[in-house]
Order: sequence, then C-alpha cells, then structure tokens
Amino acid sequence: MIDPIVTRQLRQIVGESYYRDDPEALVTHSYDGTPMLQSLPDGVIYPKTTNQVADIMKVLSVHRIPVVSRGSASNLCGGTVPVQGGVVMVMHRMNRILEVDQENLTATVQTGIITAEFTSHIESMGLFYPPDPSSMKISTIGGNIAESSGGLRGLKYGTTKDYVLGLEAVLANGEIIRTGGKLMKDVAGYDLTKLLVGSEGTLAIITEATLKLIPPPKSKKTMLAMYMDLYSAARTVSRIIEHRIIPATLEIMDNATIRVVDDYAKLGLPHDVAAILLIEQDGDSETVERDIDQIRSICESEGASRIEVAEDREQAEKLLTARRSAFTALARLRPTTILEDATVPRSRIADMVLRINEIANKYNVQIATFGHAGDGNLHPTATTDARDHEEVHRVELAFEEIFEAAISLGGTITGEHGVGLVKAPYLEWKIGAVGIAVMRGIKLAFDPHNLLNPGKVFAKETRKRVVIDRVRTSRTEPNE
Amino acid sequence: MIDPIVTRQLRQIVGESYYRDDPEALVTHSYDGTPMLQSLPDGVIYPKTTNQVADIMKVLSVHRIPVVSRGSASNLCGGTVPVQGGVVMVMHRMNRILEVDQENLTATVQTGIITAEFTSHIESMGLFYPPDPSSMKISTIGGNIAESSGGLRGLKYGTTKDYVLGLEAVLANGEIIRTGGKLMKDVAGYDLTKLLVGSEGTLAIITEATLKLIPPPKSKKTMLAMYMDLYSAARTVSRIIEHRIIPATLEIMDNATIRVVDDYAKLGLPHDVAAILLIEQDGDSETVERDIDQIRSICESEGASRIEVAEDREQAEKLLTARRSAFTALARLRPTTILEDATVPRSRIADMVLRINEIANKYNVQIATFGHAGDGNLHPTATTDARDHEEVHRVELAFEEIFEAAISLGGTITGEHGVGLVKAPYLEWKIGAVGIAVMRGIKLAFDPHNLLNPGKVFAKETRKRVVIDRVRTSRTEPNE
Repeated sequence: MIDPIVTRQLRQIVGESYYRDDPEALVTHSYDGTPMLQSLPDGVIYPKTTNQVADIMKVLSVHRIPVVSRGSASNLCGGTVPVQGGVVMVMHRMNRILEVDQENLTATVQTGIITAEFTSHIESMGLFYPPDPSSMKISTIGGNIAESSGGLRGLKYGTTKDYVLGLEAVLANGEIIRTGGKLMKDVAGYDLTKLLVGSEGTLAIITEATLKLIPPPKSKKTMLAMYMDLYSAARTVSRIIEHRIIPATLEIMDNATIRVVDDYAKLGLPHDVAAILLIEQDGDSETVERDIDQIRSICESEGASRIEVAEDREQAEKLLTARRSAFTALARLRPTTILEDATVPRSRIADMVLRINEIANKYNVQIATFGHAGDGNLHPTATTDARDHEEVHRVELAFEEIFEAAISLGGTITGEHGVGLVKAPYLEWKIGAVGIAVMRGIKLAFDPHNLLNPGKVFAKETRKRVVIDRVRTSRTEPNE
Repeated sequence: MIDPIVTRQLRQIVGESYYRDDPEALVTHSYDGTPMLQSLPDGVIYPKTTNQVADIMKVLSVHRIPVVSRGSASNLCGGTVPVQGGVVMVMHRMNRILEVDQENLTATVQTGIITAEFTSHIESMGLFYPPDPSSMKISTIGGNIAESSGGLRGLKYGTTKDYVLGLEAVLANGEIIRTGGKLMKDVAGYDLTKLLVGSEGTLAIITEATLKLIPPPKSKKTMLAMYMDLYSAARTVSRIIEHRIIPATLEIMDNATIRVVDDYAKLGLPHDVAAILLIEQDGDSETVERDIDQIRSICESEGASRIEVAEDREQAEKLLTARRSAFTALARLRPTTILEDATVPRSRIADMVLRINEIANKYNVQIATFGHAGDGNLHPTATTDARDHEEVHRVELAFEEIFEAAISLGGTITGEHGVGLVKAPYLEWKIGAVGIAVMRGIKLAFDPHNLLNPGKVFAKETRKRVVIDRVRTSRTEPNE
C-alpha cells in the first residue's frame, strides 16, 4: 500500500487518470511474458514526458518506493514482474519518433514506441534498423534496450546494443543523464550507453534513445536445408562461417519444432527430418547469388537431404514468419510453455542440442529446440502444464542442467533474454562471485537504495548445483 | 619511494630483472605519446602471466601503491603518465596469440601483443580484424582496448569496442574476472566487457582478450577527391552517406595537412586545394565498382576539382600511408605537436573545420586538421614549441575553445583518444555533473582505494569556461 499522500503527488504529476491502483490495473501489471510468475504492484503509472518520469522518481525515491519500468512486458525472464511491489511505470505513452536524421543516419525516439512501428516508419524512408526480436510486433524499443534484445538478423548485423548511440535516462533520484549522441565515436569516459543497454531496468529508466540506422540491403534470398541428422545440420553452420560467409540469418529448428510449426503454419515441411536450417543472405544481388550458391553446395556436401530456395519474397516471408511463430506454435501444444535461452560458441551447437535432448529424456519432459544457430543462441522450449507441480519441477531441474551444460561448453545462461528473476540464481555460474560483486557495486553507484526493479539480476541465493529436493517458491501460477 | 620490503616481494613474483627502479627505467616510463607531460614512477614491472599480475596487485593493494598498466604508451591523452608515482606495469611480455578459432571466427590473445603483429598473423590466415588505429605498428591490443581505439576503417567496421567479445582482467585487489566469451550474444548481467573497453586502465588490468574476426573483403578500391572549397568536401561526406553508401574509409585532410603530408611523402598532391577526401570502399568487386562510380559522381556534382582513383593496391597503399603519416609529417614542422580529437555528428564537420580555423586565427596559432570525416572525428593538430610558454598557453586556450565548439555542435571532447589526463577537466562538458558522479561510483565499485591509474578521467577541477589568466601547472616539459 502506498500512502495516499504519495499517490496524490503522483497523480498531480501525470494527471488523475494516469495513476491507477484499481484491482484491474494491478492484476494486469502483475505478470509478464514469463509463465508462472506473478506479483501484484501497489500502483501503475503512465508518464508522458521525461520530466514527469524525473518528478515521479523524486517522489518515489524520497519514500523509498520500488519502481519497475516496462514497455509491453513481453520479456521471458520475469524481468518486469514487480516482485517487491511498488509502482509499475508503463512507458507506452512516451512513443514518439522525435527525429530521423538522414544525414547522420540516426533516429531519436522515445522508448515506449513499439519496435515494429518504428522499423516500418524507418523502412518507409528507405532506411534500415536491423534488430528484429521475435516479439517486435508488441515489444518496445525501450524493452529491447533494457534486455539488449537480439533477433533473427543478429549473426550479420548484431543486436540492439550495436545500434544504440546515445540515451537519455532518469536515475533513481530523479536526475536526468544524457549519454553518447549522434556520434559514431565517443570515448568521453566510461561507456554508460552500452552499460545501460541490457541493464534490465535496474540502473535507470531509459526515456529516449538515439539509434544508428544503416542502408538497407538491395536484395535478399532465403533457403531451407533439411537434414536427417542433427549433427550434419549443426556442422553446416560452422562450415558456412568457415567458408567466410556470414549470412544475415542462420536459424535451426529441430524435429519437434518443425512438426509443430508446420502443423501451425501449413508449409508442407517434411515431418521426418531431424533438423532444418533456415538461411537468408542479403546484400548486393551478385553477392547474394554467389553466397547462396556456395551455401547450397556446403549444405549438399554436409549431407542435406533436401534444399529449397524460396522463389520470391512472399515465399521467403512465409518461411521467416513460420520460424518467428515457433514459440506461438509450441504454445498450442500444452497449457504452459517455457522458452529458454542457452547460448554456446557456434561450434558447439550440435553438442548443445544433443545435451538438451539427453537432459529432456533424463527428466522425461518435452523440450523442442530452435534458435539462432549462427549465433550459437538456442531456445530449448519446454511444453508443460503449470498445474502439474511435479512435472514443472522436473522441467526446472532439466533447465538447470541445460544452463550447466551451456556453461561447460563455453557458453552463457542467456544470450538475448536477460537475467531478470528467472536466471538470477545462475548468474554466478557465468560471471563468478567476483563478477557479481562488481555488478553489485555498479548497481549501488546508480541506485543506492535499490529502488529500480529490485529483486532482478541479483539473486538472494545462488544455485551451487542441482539439488533434487529443493523447493522453489518464487514461481507461482499466474492468472488462470 | 617504495619500501624495499615491497620491491623484494615484487621481484619475487616476476623475477629479479623484471622489476626495475633504476633512473633509466623510471625516466623512460615517465611519459607517453602526449607532449609536455611527465611524471616519474617509483618502479617499473614487467609481468609474464595473469597470475603474476594478480600477485602484483595483491601486494600493491595491501600497500596502497598506485599502478599504471600500459602497452606501448602511444596514447595522446596522457593516459599512461604515472602522475601519482607508484608502479608502471608494462604488458609487452604478455604478447602471445593464445588461439585463433576458425570455426567461431575468434582470436584470444594476451593484451601485450602489438596490434600490427596480431593483424598480420590474422590476415595470413585469411581473416580480418578491422580496427586499425594509426599507431597500430607500435600500439598494443591492450592499449587499443583501454582507449577503445578507432582508426581509418571505423566508419564501416566500427572501432575496437565492436570487436571485443570477452576479457580476462585483474581487479585492484588481485582478483581475476572473466567476462563474455566466444559468444556472439551474451546478456548475463551488466556488460562488463564493453565497460572495461575504454576504461583507460582505471577499472582493471586487462590481461587477455577474445576478439571477433570477420571474413576479409574480397576487393578494395581507393580514390582521392580534391576540392577548392572546404564546405564542398564536407558536404560530399554527408551526400555519400545520404546516398546509402557506407565507405570503408572516408578521410579528410585540410590544406595545411596536405602540404605537409605531400612534402613528407612526395605524392605529387596539389598544394593549392582546400581539402582532399581519401575514400576507400571494399567488398565484392561488383559492389566496390558500383559504389566507387557512384561516389565519383557525387564528388563531381559537389564540385570536386580533381578526382583520382588509385590504379593498383600499391598506389592505394601509398595514399593510405600518406594519410596515416599525417601526425609524423606535421611533427617535422616544429618541436612540439599536439594532436586533438574533437568529434561531431558527421553532418557538422564543415562547421567544425571552419570553427577550428577561426579559433586558430583568433589565438594566432598553427592548426592543421585531418581526420575520419565519415565518423565526424577530426584531429585538429597544433604545431608549436613547448619552450615557448606563451604560445603553448595560446594553443591550450584554442583547444579549450575547440572542445567547446564540438560540444555545441552536438559532439564530444574525444572520439577515439580517450580522456586520460588532458581531457579530464572537460569531461563534465560532455557528460554533466550527474554523469561524472555515476562514473565515480563505477570507479569505486572496481577500485575502492583508487589505485588503478589514479588522476585520470576524473579531474580535480572542471573547466567551467575559458579563463584567460589561469595558470596550468599539470603540463610540464618532458625530457629534453
């Protein structure tokens, strides 16, 4: 409960209707894209300007009230669940494109804008903003920045981090900071811009971003390569890169994913293959033709059973949409879908997929795997039922072992989804106790009273190893 | 003076001959590439392994002795001058290439390796590491990482920061931290990798780096465009980008630079033109041909008086070498050369060059300007004489106004050289008092006793505005 004196101050800042604490507002902001997590906030606020955000933070910091800033809350790490209550700050009203600068190839936006709306606008001007998280139709640029989101084009073009040139952000105490600018180079002090990207709302509330744009590729070509054997598909990924070709997109789907995606999208994919690679190259047409030809012969020599090159953009878009729909398609199978994010050096993806399958068998759980093979970024996805606590427990044990396997293969616990609540107990596996201590120091420098998205990134308890009989209380069933 | 008990401990760690405190060692490590700065250390140490670095730091931190880690000290911001004495740690013995991973396109190196030696090795394997600071024949990968160095290929390929995937570093207390990895994506916690890149030796001692490699471009073409009018040259830069062409290199030299470079390199450049653009494109040969043709017609329509396309690689290399030699060539003119680093949005470079010329006239000092026009990263370079204190004072006032002008044009005080000692008083102009406070908090999180390169980045005093009668004592004449 927030003191009515405080809520009155908050309403004065944003206007009566933009602070809500009715049950509907609280419940609808108590969860995010992550299954089985829920926690009610005390209030929900919808600022319109950076100055409002600053004024809100002045009030909240004086009263030591936690705040969770969010866009559309499509994250998959429990990153925007208000686990310590307080105020959820929804950024959707701050959704303006402030400028597109054609001479400098930059765009400056408020962070509440929907990513796909931004990219459509940019593309209509003949420009290109490559980061394309699968959530882009609903997620915001601010959310993408908070999570340093990846996407299907990460291999060639990098992720959100690579396109953020400057930020405006509000600190916990309400002070406004501006980093970077329309500058291709800036080494004036520590790189606060890149530090804020991926900081998951725990260091500052990001209100504006200056983004780098690039010229769009002149042509594109999309192909599928199908394999009866997973290792051959994975080896093809490494071989393409070894041949000094960096495709724009290089995705993998395993058999379980293929079947579900095909049932959903009706593409006529064969249901008996072990894996499909979805490969896209873009650039000048000669380069694209040459690369696709070479990729085709690499696929053949690595034993692809069938290769299909999309005949036109329409067919290509169908394939890409199918891949993007993998999560949705899998979600139809059973009531609860848990999509994870283990990432390894790309040379180890075959080992990783096999380990995932072994672990799924060991715990007798259903896990389909797809992901950005070129980045080594896999999304093992469990289909389960939150009401079956015993099965969910096995799923959690399986994921714990999957994270362990990723680390042991030189990988990381999260490639693009963030740490949030779900991965916090495992962060030490990747970065060590010393790394956590340094990160805690950084957190303290920005947010001394731990008001910004508290309870995320840093866990109270670190998982030392898999303990079968442990009880996990943090995941409770959402609203159903 | 360091207590003999401590020096004995340090000698035990590295071996008798790898800790020195004889006058020759102290004097030769009392300055760096920055003119007019000198301060004697108390000792110089040459570690061979990460564990030695960790052991050294354990000893130094117990005794609260400052340490300045350095590669070849070619930086231009006073970044490696040991202004608070203590120990200079020279990283040159840690110069091994630990691995080149062809499947993952990464290289892991000790940070004391010379950049050009590393790139030659990589290129001999048919791979490409784009960052190419002009100092690369003498500078180290560790120095490049500490300063987040740029280079001539920054426009298309980015800077050092964009190629560092993982780091091993030793903290002030001797603990070892490992960040990132052979991972194209990793969002496990705050991005310590990118935070350490560009941290100028103030947060940790970087001992190993995992670097991203890319396929080399298949062909290259180099051209010069000459202009009787500076504005036309600068406008051409924006026009090329607006035409959605991102050249690999897009450099500018003003008349003063052209004359000096030509006298030095005997290229037969015309001495009467106002500016020359040096443009290089790389990629597949069809793309390069098409881009160069289009660039040529943009140059023509913007009023270039003469355009020359290099006929072969030899001629092209000659042009690039000439540009790289600008600093050396200018250094022949007078005893002291001060090369600065003002950076603006690329659309503002004409305004910036004109402001530089106005300021040079106002203070009656000689400033030649060249730089990475495509990045908006200009290097106004003053030729002066350190023994003429009155003139040097005017040069310093001129640079102060140049930094102010850069900021007022939406730019920054340093694009690729770092803050170090020289820019520290101006950092607040770029990042504000709030930004400085956050950076100080980060510094404290890593290095609570301020032992790592103390006196850098953060200034005791901030320049509020240009004050004519101030006395600056920090710059004293080096060893001559």
